[in-house]
Amino acid sequence: MTKLWGGRFQKTAEQWVDEFGASISFDQKLVLEDLQGSMAHVKMLGACEVLPQADADLILAGLQTLKGKAENGELEFSVSNEDIHLNLEKLLIDEIGPVGGKLHTGRSRNDQVATDMHLYLKNRVTEIIELIEAFQSAIVEQAETHVETVVPGYTHLQRAQPISFGHHLMTYFWMLQRDKERMRESLKRIDVSPLGAGAMSGTSFPIDREMSAELLGFKGVYQNSLDAVSDRDFILEFLSNSSILMMHLSRFAEEIILWSSEEFRFIELDDTFSTGSSIMPQKKNPDMAELVRGKTGRVYGNLFALLTTLKGLPLAYNKDMQEDKEGMFDTVHTLMGSLPIFEGMIRTMTVNTASMEKAVNSDFSNATELADYLAAKGMPFREAHDVTGKLVFTCIQRGYYLKDLPFDDLKSASELFEQDIYETLLPKTAVKRRTSLGGTGFDQVHYQLGLAKKLIG
Amino acid sequence: MTKLWGGRFQKTAEQWVDEFGASISFDQKLVLEDLQGSMAHVKMLGACEVLPQADADLILAGLQTLKGKAENGELEFSVSNEDIHLNLEKLLIDEIGPVGGKLHTGRSRNDQVATDMHLYLKNRVTEIIELIEAFQSAIVEQAETHVETVVPGYTHLQRAQPISFGHHLMTYFWMLQRDKERMRESLKRIDVSPLGAGAMSGTSFPIDREMSAELLGFKGVYQNSLDAVSDRDFILEFLSNSSILMMHLSRFAEEIILWSSEEFRFIELDDTFSTGSSIMPQKKNPDMAELVRGKTGRVYGNLFALLTTLKGLPLAYNKDMQEDKEGMFDTVHTLMGSLPIFEGMIRTMTVNTASMEKAVNSDFSNATELADYLAAKGMPFREAHDVTGKLVFTCIQRGYYLKDLPFDDLKSASELFEQDIYETLLPKTAVKRRTSLGGTGFDQVHYQLGLAKKLIG
Amino acid sequence: MTKLWGGRFQKTAEQWVDEFGASISFDQKLVLEDLQGSMAHVKMLGACEVLPQADADLILAGLQTLKGKAENGELEFSVSNEDIHLNLEKLLIDEIGPVGGKLHTGRSRNDQVATDMHLYLKNRVTEIIELIEAFQSAIVEQAETHVETVVPGYTHLQRAQPISFGHHLMTYFWMLQRDKERMRESLKRIDVSPLGAGAMSGTSFPIDREMSAELLGFKGVYQNSLDAVSDRDFILEFLSNSSILMMHLSRFAEEIILWSSEEFRFIELDDTFSTGSSIMPQKKNPDMAELVRGKTGRVYGNLFALLTTLKGLPLAYNKDMQEDKEGMFDTVHTLMGSLPIFEGMIRTMTVNTASMEKAVNSDFSNATELADYLAAKGMPFREAHDVTGKLVFTCIQRGYYLKDLPFDDLKSASELFEQDIYETLLPKTAVKRRTSLGGTGFDQVHYQLGLAKKLIG
Amino acid sequence: MTKLWGGRFQKTAEQWVDEFGASISFDQKLVLEDLQGSMAHVKMLGACEVLPQADADLILAGLQTLKGKAENGELEFSVSNEDIHLNLEKLLIDEIGPVGGKLHTGRSRNDQVATDMHLYLKNRVTEIIELIEAFQSAIVEQAETHVETVVPGYTHLQRAQPISFGHHLMTYFWMLQRDKERMRESLKRIDVSPLGAGAMSGTSFPIDREMSAELLGFKGVYQNSLDAVSDRDFILEFLSNSSILMMHLSRFAEEIILWSSEEFRFIELDDTFSTGSSIMPQKKNPDMAELVRGKTGRVYGNLFALLTTLKGLPLAYNKDMQEDKEGMFDTVHTLMGSLPIFEGMIRTMTVNTASMEKAVNSDFSNATELADYLAAKGMPFREAHDVTGKLVFTCIQRGYYLKDLPFDDLKSASELFEQDIYETLLPKTAVKRRTSLGGTGFDQVHYQLGLAKKLIG
Repeated sequence: MTKLWGGRFQKTAEQWVDEFGASISFDQKLVLEDLQGSMAHVKMLGACEVLPQADADLILAGLQTLKGKAENGELEFSVSNEDIHLNLEKLLIDEIGPVGGKLHTGRSRNDQVATDMHLYLKNRVTEIIELIEAFQSAIVEQAETHVETVVPGYTHLQRAQPISFGHHLMTYFWMLQRDKERMRESLKRIDVSPLGAGAMSGTSFPIDREMSAELLGFKGVYQNSLDAVSDRDFILEFLSNSSILMMHLSRFAEEIILWSSEEFRFIELDDTFSTGSSIMPQKKNPDMAELVRGKTGRVYGNLFALLTTLKGLPLAYNKDMQEDKEGMFDTVHTLMGSLPIFEGMIRTMTVNTASMEKAVNSDFSNATELADYLAAKGMPFREAHDVTGKLVFTCIQRGYYLKDLPFDDLKSASELFEQDIYETLLPKTAVKRRTSLGGTGFDQVHYQLGLAKKLIG
Repeated sequence: MTKLWGGRFQKTAEQWVDEFGASISFDQKLVLEDLQGSMAHVKMLGACEVLPQADADLILAGLQTLKGKAENGELEFSVSNEDIHLNLEKLLIDEIGPVGGKLHTGRSRNDQVATDMHLYLKNRVTEIIELIEAFQSAIVEQAETHVETVVPGYTHLQRAQPISFGHHLMTYFWMLQRDKERMRESLKRIDVSPLGAGAMSGTSFPIDREMSAELLGFKGVYQNSLDAVSDRDFILEFLSNSSILMMHLSRFAEEIILWSSEEFRFIELDDTFSTGSSIMPQKKNPDMAELVRGKTGRVYGNLFALLTTLKGLPLAYNKDMQEDKEGMFDTVHTLMGSLPIFEGMIRTMTVNTASMEKAVNSDFSNATELADYLAAKGMPFREAHDVTGKLVFTCIQRGYYLKDLPFDDLKSASELFEQDIYETLLPKTAVKRRTSLGGTGFDQVHYQLGLAKKLIG
Repeated sequence: MTKLWGGRFQKTAEQWVDEFGASISFDQKLVLEDLQGSMAHVKMLGACEVLPQADADLILAGLQTLKGKAENGELEFSVSNEDIHLNLEKLLIDEIGPVGGKLHTGRSRNDQVATDMHLYLKNRVTEIIELIEAFQSAIVEQAETHVETVVPGYTHLQRAQPISFGHHLMTYFWMLQRDKERMRESLKRIDVSPLGAGAMSGTSFPIDREMSAELLGFKGVYQNSLDAVSDRDFILEFLSNSSILMMHLSRFAEEIILWSSEEFRFIELDDTFSTGSSIMPQKKNPDMAELVRGKTGRVYGNLFALLTTLKGLPLAYNKDMQEDKEGMFDTVHTLMGSLPIFEGMIRTMTVNTASMEKAVNSDFSNATELADYLAAKGMPFREAHDVTGKLVFTCIQRGYYLKDLPFDDLKSASELFEQDIYETLLPKTAVKRRTSLGGTGFDQVHYQLGLAKKLIG
Repeated sequence: MTKLWGGRFQKTAEQWVDEFGASISFDQKLVLEDLQGSMAHVKMLGACEVLPQADADLILAGLQTLKGKAENGELEFSVSNEDIHLNLEKLLIDEIGPVGGKLHTGRSRNDQVATDMHLYLKNRVTEIIELIEAFQSAIVEQAETHVETVVPGYTHLQRAQPISFGHHLMTYFWMLQRDKERMRESLKRIDVSPLGAGAMSGTSFPIDREMSAELLGFKGVYQNSLDAVSDRDFILEFLSNSSILMMHLSRFAEEIILWSSEEFRFIELDDTFSTGSSIMPQKKNPDMAELVRGKTGRVYGNLFALLTTLKGLPLAYNKDMQEDKEGMFDTVHTLMGSLPIFEGMIRTMTVNTASMEKAVNSDFSNATELADYLAAKGMPFREAHDVTGKLVFTCIQRGYYLKDLPFDDLKSASELFEQDIYETLLPKTAVKRRTSLGGTGFDQVHYQLGLAKKLIG
């Protein structure tokens, strides 16, 4: 087989080595972006008179034909043409003859592939931002229904204080809000055109890089041609932002799994997002939550893979950088699957308020109330804490909860107790009283929901 | 030993378990931030009448005494008090008596430690941004001196095209510019106050979270108390940004090491940034570049450590999160060492222009010029490329370079060649002609330097 | 300050650069190994007549003096002498005069530091193997007590089938057994002497590498001098093995945390391994389990740090490799703390058999029994599975469990049911009947315990 | 669509959720292993009279039919049947009717998938060991040809000492030898049968796990059913061993890239393993070396992905574990491509001995010889080192090398110099004299080659 770059070579590579080196099996995902980039490039070449307008028009028409075929899945790619760029060039020449070879004037595969990836990621990140927002709106909806549903709040997976379930859910809203901010900010560095940087040093053809950038809808251009072809920061930044996002989903997944267990029974997932067991028919497994939690590893792995690949690479392009694509595609696929699945799980889950109420009435998560009660009456906090600890211990020994303590026992622990302590110990009272900004008090949660709705428009 | 939280417990932990669990050995780095946070908290408690003003004043005075001692290195911490928070509270009580216990009213260690880390990282990131900018200015300075110094540009570590050495150096300027942007953007999420979120749910004391945030110079407050205490995104974001920055330094380091080798001899590092060998006295090793390249691993490791730790953690605080600090401290230390070292290396390095000139005159990196020359005269690029490849092959067989080809040989390869081809093949001509935006043409590099200087003020 | 290798240099490094490059702050952990290596080296130099015996004796005496001081903490190290090797050489010369300089004959810092690390890791891995075995014995002990304690077995954190708690605990025994095997196998590659490889190429002095290896207790010697100084596989292998071990501990930690929750209440940890809350006095947090789970991140991070550092390094020694030590020390420290803590937690935990019994009697984890019952009577498994699923669904609707199904309902679901189905549905019966090799049947668990005890001697 | 496990469910999952959760797109790689496992299982069921022999025979025949079809690529899988196990079961039932449902008696998908992966990895690791050995033999061959070819040895990428090129190449032999050892040792933990562990607890059917294990060629069986289904150590161990192996290849790749550069010109790669540039026709890029170096990231990423996924997972099977396969397949593919490519590169590369000779004669890499010369005559090594450093400095100032120093200058530096110093300074002499065990002396290299040949049989 004859390679397009083979003039200097005396032998052709063996087939299996070719296959190992070829990227066409995965970079064909960039087919539309590659055609889009070529169209802008050739329009610019024509406008700048680098190519005769007739040639430019012919090439453009050929590219449009290819685009139509690509959309209909009619293009056939070959490993012997290595990558999407050479495949398309070959197909173009088949389509319109040798003039197709002029398309490559004033550019190189190095700036071409970078352009494709900038175009691809710009579109995907924009879509991911929308998916995040749809998920946020599902959270807001459930949270709004459950502002006054009281659940145990946990630290160390031990019941700590009663809180609003809506408040708990909203924690994930804010995590996602930061994910969205980071994705948006990253667009500044994605939405930049490398086209025209050539192999590494620019070109002596009188091209207009700003024109091709504008035709492609890019907000700016790289100011340094070596940087343009060797920069993969924008992918790393996407993978980092995705890793943090997946970490958030893994935390939510863990909670969904816990809440779905027989032991917690706080929620029931819709059948759509659960599966059964091949051997245990009673099981209703929170498979989708587990799967997304598991896929966190994959996204971390993709980030680490690219960080490793880029470490210590000298300028400018090196073949190592071909490894930049699969992890990016895989991460896009993972996010674009995981976000709607979470959205669906949260929208459709049934909240078991009876279990939650039972839980908050049978534990010591109101102990802080008791300590705060004493502190509010002037006892130094550490002393109040100590008194409370001893009362909890008494209850445990006697097998009941704080609300069951006889008033005499309270009085003998501290003269500061009054009868209103029993009202104070009610979970709902406890939650309502947390009126500090951002606290779990119902009014605060409503205020928070108001802020949230503005943020998702 | 008596634990501050020990009321409920019947036994004390064994010493070695305590030591394994205690964080005082490393979180004492936060001593000043912890005092600063406490001062703001107690001022607010006084202003909001949560504490009597007299108590607040007494506590504030005590904290100021501790601050003075901390700055003089006069505080002694103990493992039995676990962490910096309990140590300082104990020292405060020693200083001013039991009233010190009131300081903890309306907050918890969970929001306290989060506040400390936000304060710490805000300051460090601000300093790191300055160090990046100082390093950028060293690059600009060397680049400006070497706009017209021509070196081989490489792809695949093969000489590809002659370029301006100033242009090559400026690639790192733009990488650092993105690093700086990311660090700056991350400040939005660092510069937020968690103080007053309590253990997880806020507090029923009538505190004013915005007041304490303002006293600490924070731009905003967390809107959800669970989020405030369980969020570590701001550290992950710092570690991601640092990983990308270290990747950039590792690439620069690789080039410095290559350029310092006997084979390249493009630069000589100043003795300050080199070391010798214990057994080979002639060696002048680029140790500092190697060390920074090596330390890339450490920073990646810190990022992955925290990503792993946070994966799948349920809300809110879990002891796992104590692991958030050492990697952050270590990364700060690594960056704050590596950046000035690179700045110094670049400022003080000697550029061996003679070696560079020799290099660009004895290779085929001007082959693109020849192909472009033909393409500009109308030959389809792929054909021009092919003709060039064959001429290169001829030269290799005869043992000379393109500029040494007799004119007849050129003519017989293509009728399009004229005498001006010899001028075209001069490296300096080649570089000068790359006038596309962001290209290596000298005027473009000067333009780029102008942009760069504006960006570093 | 004068550097030992400074002859060729005209300037000394600035203090802060020195500090960044120096390793003495952490490699002083190798002081005893370095002295041990030097003693073997000098004995061999004397025996091989590379040094006059009198010189060798003098040096050996000096080294012994230093060893005594080191053990008493009387040695003072200085950053200006960079690392432990140069510091000790300087101290030796201070002790016995210029003859101390002869110690370095026929070796280099490159083989010296490699020797130190092999010695260090050989000892630590041996100790870690003992700690694993001690932990295994604690598991066996608890498992033996709880062979007939029945708990729900989980898949997807849903109750799946009743199992023996002893059987469940023994899973961790087998994980640790593999950890131990891997650690033991790695000793083959740790227990090898690089001493005498010199800077990279060996030496022309007539040394006897096998003699020095034997004096140090090594089982073999490196057969290639470049390999000897540039190999860090043995550390990577340790870090990989440690990562897998920590993953095991993280799984166990997760279960301990779940079991300690109010919702499960399967175990209670001893106070020694729990802590309280600064604000919620009723809490008894499984801090140590959480901390070890969190530290998994740190060990993974150390592995990836070194994998990154070594990636793409040309032969032989590069300064990047100085980064090999801190992650190794930190991992050793983490394992040597985590293993005894787990051992203690498991030995001292209280198993709440009442909660376990209640759990297995109020769920559908016996559904498999019902399906197997039908399958054993000839119904194709998939059909049996389907029938069971429908019966479970009926129970859920009616609010009771399989054991509460009236016999008529069973019969109408399948004619194959007989009265013995009720016996079959008892959790204990179910467990007892799982008699396949390695199954949870009590006899099988006893058999397994027998095997286990042989493996830990 | 009807799910095989759907009895208990009221709704079916939406198509896109199914697709996200299904593993058939990748686990169909296990089709032959799955059939093999099923055949052994059903033979055992028949032999143990769990199934009537007629049923067992029918099922076995059906499985054999499916195997034939699988080998001819005639099986069609469907996402609605989720994974390879349910797909094959469905196809079996289509083939032989409802009796096919009896195949699943006494096992579960949990032990089934674990069995498949053990079978798969056992075969692949065995093949990888052979590929390693083939690569080692290519190294031995080249090394043998170049025992007396002298090249600069490098530390810090600075020329350090002249060494034998064969010796240098052999370093990689020993790295690979350790890789092979680790792979072999890992087989102990791969070659173990989980079959019959069921969902987690074993089974009450009178199966014979040792029989099915033997039929599958496994050396042993898991002794604990929970361990059998939740253990993924064997995959982690494979990924760790592969990461270290790829790290080795990345180091070799780095050297091949350096050696192929214009600056070094030590080797020329065969055209089969090089490629050209689309714009620079003179380029001969060491693409395959770069690609493998880049792929190191991918393998590290796969390891980290699975370590993350498994972290903190409670027993026994969780859906997260479905993520164990793709990284394993990808790593197998990467290794099985990279190893033969390296073998080919090394076997076919041309060594440029002229460049190497020129290099070793124009540097200071013989400085150690001079220092050793003085040390051998009794000068303390540190003093000899210092004298040498000063002589090097003199040479650099005068623009020549050590061999060019007039004898008077040597004498005035030290009285110990004799005329034989000039012979000592010859690179070949220097190499020959490094006769210590494992050193670069030619005899030593021959001895090493002898050892190596025995190790690869």
